[in-house]
Amino acid sequence: MQTIQSYINENKDRFLNELIELLKIPSISADSAYKNDVLKTAEIIKTSLENAGCDHVEICETDGYPIVYGEKIINKDLPTVLVYGHYDVQPPDPLDLWNSPPFEPVIQKTELHPDGAIFARGACDDKGQMYMHVKALEYMTKNDELPCNVKFMIEGEEEVGSENLGIFVTNNREKLENDVILISDTGMIAKDVPSITTGLRGLSYVEVEVTGPNRDLHSGLYGGAVANPINVLTKMIATLHDDNNHITIPGFYDNVEHLSESERAEMAKAPFSLDSYKKALDIDAVYGEKGYTTNERNSIRPTLDVNGIWGGYIGEGAKTVIASKAYAKISMRLVPHQDWEEITELFKSHFESIAPDAVKVKVTPHHGGQGYVTPIDSIGYKAASKAYEQTFGKVPIPQRSGGSIPIVSLFEKELNSKTILMGFGLDSDAIHSPNEHFGIWNYLKGIETIPWFYKYFTELKK
Amino acid sequence: MQTIQSYINENKDRFLNELIELLKIPSISADSAYKNDVLKTAEIIKTSLENAGCDHVEICETDGYPIVYGEKIINKDLPTVLVYGHYDVQPPDPLDLWNSPPFEPVIQKTELHPDGAIFARGACDDKGQMYMHVKALEYMTKNDELPCNVKFMIEGEEEVGSENLGIFVTNNREKLENDVILISDTGMIAKDVPSITTGLRGLSYVEVEVTGPNRDLHSGLYGGAVANPINVLTKMIATLHDDNNHITIPGFYDNVEHLSESERAEMAKAPFSLDSYKKALDIDAVYGEKGYTTNERNSIRPTLDVNGIWGGYIGEGAKTVIASKAYAKISMRLVPHQDWEEITELFKSHFESIAPDAVKVKVTPHHGGQGYVTPIDSIGYKAASKAYEQTFGKVPIPQRSGGSIPIVSLFEKELNSKTILMGFGLDSDAIHSPNEHFGIWNYLKGIETIPWFYKYFTELKK
Repeated sequence: MQTIQSYINENKDRFLNELIELLKIPSISADSAYKNDVLKTAEIIKTSLENAGCDHVEICETDGYPIVYGEKIINKDLPTVLVYGHYDVQPPDPLDLWNSPPFEPVIQKTELHPDGAIFARGACDDKGQMYMHVKALEYMTKNDELPCNVKFMIEGEEEVGSENLGIFVTNNREKLENDVILISDTGMIAKDVPSITTGLRGLSYVEVEVTGPNRDLHSGLYGGAVANPINVLTKMIATLHDDNNHITIPGFYDNVEHLSESERAEMAKAPFSLDSYKKALDIDAVYGEKGYTTNERNSIRPTLDVNGIWGGYIGEGAKTVIASKAYAKISMRLVPHQDWEEITELFKSHFESIAPDAVKVKVTPHHGGQGYVTPIDSIGYKAASKAYEQTFGKVPIPQRSGGSIPIVSLFEKELNSKTILMGFGLDSDAIHSPNEHFGIWNYLKGIETIPWFYKYFTELKK
Repeated sequence: MQTIQSYINENKDRFLNELIELLKIPSISADSAYKNDVLKTAEIIKTSLENAGCDHVEICETDGYPIVYGEKIINKDLPTVLVYGHYDVQPPDPLDLWNSPPFEPVIQKTELHPDGAIFARGACDDKGQMYMHVKALEYMTKNDELPCNVKFMIEGEEEVGSENLGIFVTNNREKLENDVILISDTGMIAKDVPSITTGLRGLSYVEVEVTGPNRDLHSGLYGGAVANPINVLTKMIATLHDDNNHITIPGFYDNVEHLSESERAEMAKAPFSLDSYKKALDIDAVYGEKGYTTNERNSIRPTLDVNGIWGGYIGEGAKTVIASKAYAKISMRLVPHQDWEEITELFKSHFESIAPDAVKVKVTPHHGGQGYVTPIDSIGYKAASKAYEQTFGKVPIPQRSGGSIPIVSLFEKELNSKTILMGFGLDSDAIHSPNEHFGIWNYLKGIETIPWFYKYFTELKK
């Protein structure tokens, strides 16, 4: 295994160029205009898995975008690692805030990344992190270092709810049989502070529509006399949080997991500077639920955020109109034990109940998923911890993430195995934002660390 | 004057076709992309005034769009009528709600308009109503029926605040000298219920911008820990009305004119059916300030309406993002004695004061204008009343309008003369909305009624 570093040095330019080619394709699953690009990306993943040494690779059709499945079975008696990742990306807008086009990758040095970072949509989330596994497999097969069986399941609908992946997993339990699931779709605390994500938040994503009059109206002739759907929508949304920023939906907190003081104290040990956090975001103050720290607010507490709102005249200049309709996209991040479908129902009935008679309200659930917590005493966690220790020279810190990978809890339910979240991204990578990037150092460090996980996991399973 | 009806019958097709040509030009003053169309429209107005018999017509340049000035002075000792109107139109969006393209006029019969109505942006507001005056002048000059002097002042920035018209009026007091100002840019109660608008609301139009973090953020990693500018904006807007729908801006109502019970009783006499009002708008209930009727809410009471709101991801599908910025366009309709600049200041300082530390707020005033009330015992009002009685066979009802023509109060201040608002539109004309239209009957009735105003005004002035 000592050859991994030299292998990376010899091939690093190729590793970079292959990822750059992958990043040039706008595989935006949320926008049907990019359908062909998403499909083309699946084909490229298939080829890359074949080149990396998989014995069998197939593109599995679904009702949505296909899932790329690949495997290399060296010995049925050895353990099997199932790698999950996704080849679709978030929409890139607002485009005008990108310093370079989102699908024309460029390498640039930054303060955090003196060796350079690749700037492109999907660089970190998740093409870059997913491709680390492909290259790690390449190393292991080409150098006869693969100690166990490996399966890949790379989907194209993660950014829109993984609806069809759930069906695929349920229908292919045997094919996907494994001893541990390995995912790199999260981050670590810092380049010199490796961490393993032990918790994820669930998600419920809905769209609301408020309809007032049946047509846009002149705000002078009707203003004050009819319900303005935008005014009403803002009032309705505003009431979803109280003055302490608690969410007011009845029953919302019923199943929220409450951490003990000692657990919270343990969390508080993770290195964190509120000043640099505020400085990085250029904000004068943080904002959130009373009684919790910033790191608690974005990990162990549920949230309700408006992700988009629109209605009326939003063009240049002024238009004195009362719109007929107003819309908002609202997502709730959930913590373990909150059931996303139940929360979606609670939201729907509450939101409908607070609408005045003067408007009509429609709530459309988009998608969602359960939260997840993984134990730190599992073989998988221990193997990951040893792998990081090997390549970072430090024991990684277990960390709850605020993000969601809804499918993880389904994996446990359907495949009955634990998921290990080995993330190599950084909070500053701007995933889901303009100028998303992924440090070259992080990319190569991931490729270097992953084979060690295979080694230790196989040894510990014996 | 009995010849007016036969003149209209002989020329009505031409009257319609000339208006239709005018409506084909998208003179959208709010959107600079249409600059050339707005300028082209001014040229056409100039020509139409020359053809109608003006001795002198000129296009007066301003810092914005030009003002078309025309005059026919028959005798310095006779009274002078100044006609005001505008050749710019509101933006047509939302385009998908139009049944026919907004700038491809079509004539269609409706329940209210068995003789047909012209559907196009600007059909009523104000190209159609302004052009009635041009055709009325044509009749009077061609048939030697013009009893007094006439001046036309047609601007191209009414829909964006008439900023440069104010400067023009102030700098051309002598040129614009007149005995009465005549405007058709309002409506009447019904085709069989003629009315004259005696009051207009003022306007203050602002745009607000709320900035949270310096870039869009992943709602999972940051959700709950930083201020979401959309959530904050909705909370801020929501607090601008209390539970009784009173506006909460300190000092907002200080100068509001309070009508006596008898005045309110007089207003209540105007024919109005709440059921048909609700049916026409397809709403189950009206909505507004507690303690006032629908007709009071949209005429004698000030309002605050969000005319547009936007922020975050508003495309297809879902994006789990916390936006960096959120925006809203907000307009306040004001009643007589409320000073629009003072109200704009009150709004600005209040809105900034209620922003939490976690965001930055910018308030940009767009434009505004004062409200207006005209007495019903003036010669101008009496002449208008007799003109309607002549052509409708009924005495018109004085009516307060909720709309704003900010320039009217400036006319009185600078030109020291009263404005008479002879509107021939209907509430159902959908001005500022998709499918704006103007009844052919209303258009021709206006052309028929206007010359009678000239006749009676000149007689009453003697």
